[in-house]
Amino acid sequence: MLSTMQDVPLTVARILTHGSTVHAGTTVATWNGASADRRSYAEVGARAAQLAHALRDELGVVGDERVATLMWNNAGHLEAYLAVPAMGAVLHTLNLRLPAHQLAFIVNHAADRVILVDATLLPLLAPVLPQLAPTLKHIVVAGQGDRAPLDGFAGTVHDYDELIAGRPTDYPWATDLDERTAAALCYTSGTTGDPKGVAYSHRSVYLHCLQVIAGDSFGLTARDIALPVVPMFHVNAWGIPHAAFMSGTGLLMPDRFLQPKPLAQMISSERPTVSAAVPTIWSGLLDELDHGAYDTSSLRMVVIGGSACPPSLMRAFEERHGIDVVHAWGMTETSPLGSFATVPPGLTPEQRWPYRITQGRFPATVEARLVGPDGTRMPHDGTAAGELEVRGPWIAGAYFGGAGQDPLRPEDKFSEDGWLRTGDVGTITADGYLTLTDRAKDVIKSGGEWISSVELENHLMAHPDVAEAAVVAVPDEKWGERPLATVVLRDGAAVEFTVLRDFLAERVAKWQLPERWTLLTEVPKTSVGKFDKKVIRRQHADGELDVTRLS
Amino acid sequence: MLSTMQDVPLTVARILTHGSTVHAGTTVATWNGASADRRSYAEVGARAAQLAHALRDELGVVGDERVATLMWNNAGHLEAYLAVPAMGAVLHTLNLRLPAHQLAFIVNHAADRVILVDATLLPLLAPVLPQLAPTLKHIVVAGQGDRAPLDGFAGTVHDYDELIAGRPTDYPWATDLDERTAAALCYTSGTTGDPKGVAYSHRSVYLHCLQVIAGDSFGLTARDIALPVVPMFHVNAWGIPHAAFMSGTGLLMPDRFLQPKPLAQMISSERPTVSAAVPTIWSGLLDELDHGAYDTSSLRMVVIGGSACPPSLMRAFEERHGIDVVHAWGMTETSPLGSFATVPPGLTPEQRWPYRITQGRFPATVEARLVGPDGTRMPHDGTAAGELEVRGPWIAGAYFGGAGQDPLRPEDKFSEDGWLRTGDVGTITADGYLTLTDRAKDVIKSGGEWISSVELENHLMAHPDVAEAAVVAVPDEKWGERPLATVVLRDGAAVEFTVLRDFLAERVAKWQLPERWTLLTEVPKTSVGKFDKKVIRRQHADGELDVTRLS
Repeated sequence: MLSTMQDVPLTVARILTHGSTVHAGTTVATWNGASADRRSYAEVGARAAQLAHALRDELGVVGDERVATLMWNNAGHLEAYLAVPAMGAVLHTLNLRLPAHQLAFIVNHAADRVILVDATLLPLLAPVLPQLAPTLKHIVVAGQGDRAPLDGFAGTVHDYDELIAGRPTDYPWATDLDERTAAALCYTSGTTGDPKGVAYSHRSVYLHCLQVIAGDSFGLTARDIALPVVPMFHVNAWGIPHAAFMSGTGLLMPDRFLQPKPLAQMISSERPTVSAAVPTIWSGLLDELDHGAYDTSSLRMVVIGGSACPPSLMRAFEERHGIDVVHAWGMTETSPLGSFATVPPGLTPEQRWPYRITQGRFPATVEARLVGPDGTRMPHDGTAAGELEVRGPWIAGAYFGGAGQDPLRPEDKFSEDGWLRTGDVGTITADGYLTLTDRAKDVIKSGGEWISSVELENHLMAHPDVAEAAVVAVPDEKWGERPLATVVLRDGAAVEFTVLRDFLAERVAKWQLPERWTLLTEVPKTSVGKFDKKVIRRQHADGELDVTRLS
Repeated sequence: MLSTMQDVPLTVARILTHGSTVHAGTTVATWNGASADRRSYAEVGARAAQLAHALRDELGVVGDERVATLMWNNAGHLEAYLAVPAMGAVLHTLNLRLPAHQLAFIVNHAADRVILVDATLLPLLAPVLPQLAPTLKHIVVAGQGDRAPLDGFAGTVHDYDELIAGRPTDYPWATDLDERTAAALCYTSGTTGDPKGVAYSHRSVYLHCLQVIAGDSFGLTARDIALPVVPMFHVNAWGIPHAAFMSGTGLLMPDRFLQPKPLAQMISSERPTVSAAVPTIWSGLLDELDHGAYDTSSLRMVVIGGSACPPSLMRAFEERHGIDVVHAWGMTETSPLGSFATVPPGLTPEQRWPYRITQGRFPATVEARLVGPDGTRMPHDGTAAGELEVRGPWIAGAYFGGAGQDPLRPEDKFSEDGWLRTGDVGTITADGYLTLTDRAKDVIKSGGEWISSVELENHLMAHPDVAEAAVVAVPDEKWGERPLATVVLRDGAAVEFTVLRDFLAERVAKWQLPERWTLLTEVPKTSVGKFDKKVIRRQHADGELDVTRLS
């Protein structure tokens, strides 16, 4: 039996039209280093229309062609966020922290026709230009600055404000397209292999916005001002720009001023109520707030994601500055919300901590399950560990261009029944709280059980003679995989592997103890200083390691 | 370009599974007159599964057959709310205030196979039984009470608890159906003509839930307890039961105890944080709170809809009991949210009042426009009036069974481009606030302009010699329609029509002054005491009225 409801698609065009009319007077404030440049949502809507006309009439963007942005969080970027999907094209946000060859790869892979770039980022774009395919026809520069870095570009260079000036301030937005068509494209910055693109749909962006404004997520209202410190090139700044336009929430955009002092200044003077950031930035801000005279009383909530926030940092913000720091989990493939560590009612502040340090609970629209080492579902009892798999309308089911294979892992990134394999391992309690403990590639699958390499490493490094320890999975005929412990001893130390094994035996189950041990002079590291375990695995596979086998 | 997101439908089954697992420990408390009977969401989920098994295996409900409920707001009704749509059948909520012949009409029109009924409501169902079609096979009685009223029923009578006892507590819910299929059916209780059914889809219910939990609507979280005083047979209790299961919000169900004293008692002892009601019930509650010793400090918001709440009542609740009363607008055809009178930031309490007494702002998912007397769009300037038309994925685009004609109005209830004509007339400000002033059938369309009959009546009744006045539209060759003023004079009063016209002329524009006047001994009234203008229009059309025409 069909319903009698209207068949109206969920579109970015609706968000744009709603925000720029019903919330015409709400403002986006972009920090300029000393104060904020303001633009009303009505102006943003009018300029978005002008941008769409320019893209279509002047730059020839048709259908679902890709328009890229290499921009900070600012009002211009917000206009592109709205205009490009709302005209039916696809917004491709470029991660300005990618190395040049990866930037070139993703621009070419997406066949971007246009790049909108902040003038301050031209030095970053210039070295990429020679590697770009001729599909890129136009570069549009926003803001003042030297255009010389673009001299070698074969296409056309435009000034953003000149390009849109004088064009009509309304546009026949794509309000009736299929909500499953792509609205925005974001590539994951994998540590190995080429970046992989996730193409968000109008449907997924819209539903995700409804979650961002939900009471148990950011709960954005027309009385809030949101400060997205997380970059707009990174999973759409967790959906905050689009969600703010949906809910009439004011925006405070930090532009390139992401250092502790300007962040403290803009919070103090612009009085945002909500913010979102990664732990490293927020850790630097704490020190600034501790030593300066800033007013942070407007902030009701700061959401921290990307990686786990140290509880000490959460306590410090709460106790010294009255700021409630809330954990969230997500990834590019999950739009990104994800779980949100709100707390059950009726608890004392101390009773709240065990919930706050988890990754939180999933909303109804994200279904979660744990899959154990033998592929079966693990119970949600807070103890049984499994790889986290998620399902839902704002969760990726494939990669743009068909890439579904992670070179690091032989299994597909997606299960046979279409769930996303997150690569994260952890537990879920009976009341839905997620705690992540390992990356899946760091656990050893031994005879239908999982051994946490991170746990073994932490125990080994607690031994006084051990400087560093890395544990990796190696193939084993009987058990499938078994742990190989590689150890770097402290200067002058000498200790038998049997002693280290006995040390571990007091701390972990017997079946988890490594039989294979190797001494290293140094653990191989990635460019950002993390243990590079794939190098160890390859060295072992190539027979380059001197392995002692204990019986 | 297709997105890479998973194609996961929005379903009631997902709400059910989420609420009964992630929020397993949340409780629904049903008032029993003295205290509350509690059931956890895990138990509700398990009993919903048992109910689904019983409906399918024992009562033979297949596919999208209709299962009706004639129940108060209680835990059993919540189980039906979840189980029936989640198994793929359609929940038909029966309005227990309908007259018997209309109840029979809607049960037969929907071809209900089963009715779930509270034992306390059997006396209401009994007189309907002889009129029911043989499509109704089963009556399931919830709770204790005399079954004798059902003696004449030709089908089978079951006891709810006995029926579900011992059945499996999980069920293969319909998680992958087309989200546009019907989930629930609710008939509008039109004052004339047969009731018309609105069939909500899984998609519309789900999206509407996401709006109910949004920060600028109810903002429901897992730390809230919601008290839906609005009945579950009336537009799904404004979506609160489903939304509570989505957000893990506790529920306090009043069952049949809707009188001021038990309401005050249950608020005092169960400490709900949010409630929703119509003005009449809340007005009675005020008096009880004023004179008793009740603790209402838990309530952060009470949403009032159905009809406008007198500002004096809003002030009284705020000033005497610290309860924030918020206006909302909606109707059966709009799921029902609708606009919500949240207030812009930065205002003093007195500055907030002009916003609070409006019908509020629309969320992004409900698009609104005003259509003037000549069919053109009116500006949103707070002055120009038009009929409110709305569009969106949780707005009806037709009626169940194809009825799209309102016998009261020759025009279709839906515009040519598919918008719902609400039948409400009002204005919208530039910043989106809706104020409703008239029903469309009460305005007179005169030469491309609208004349408000309500306004003329209010002015006439302010004249000391006038007891009652009703103004209706009558056909006019030159202007299309013109006002006919019908007047009942006070006992002993004698006044010329010209005097009344001059009285009006000081208060409204000249072109709005009625030429046609009639004296009545009494204005015809409906069964609930409202002016029955269609009787006057028919009397005029039939030449039964003695009309004086002023030049």
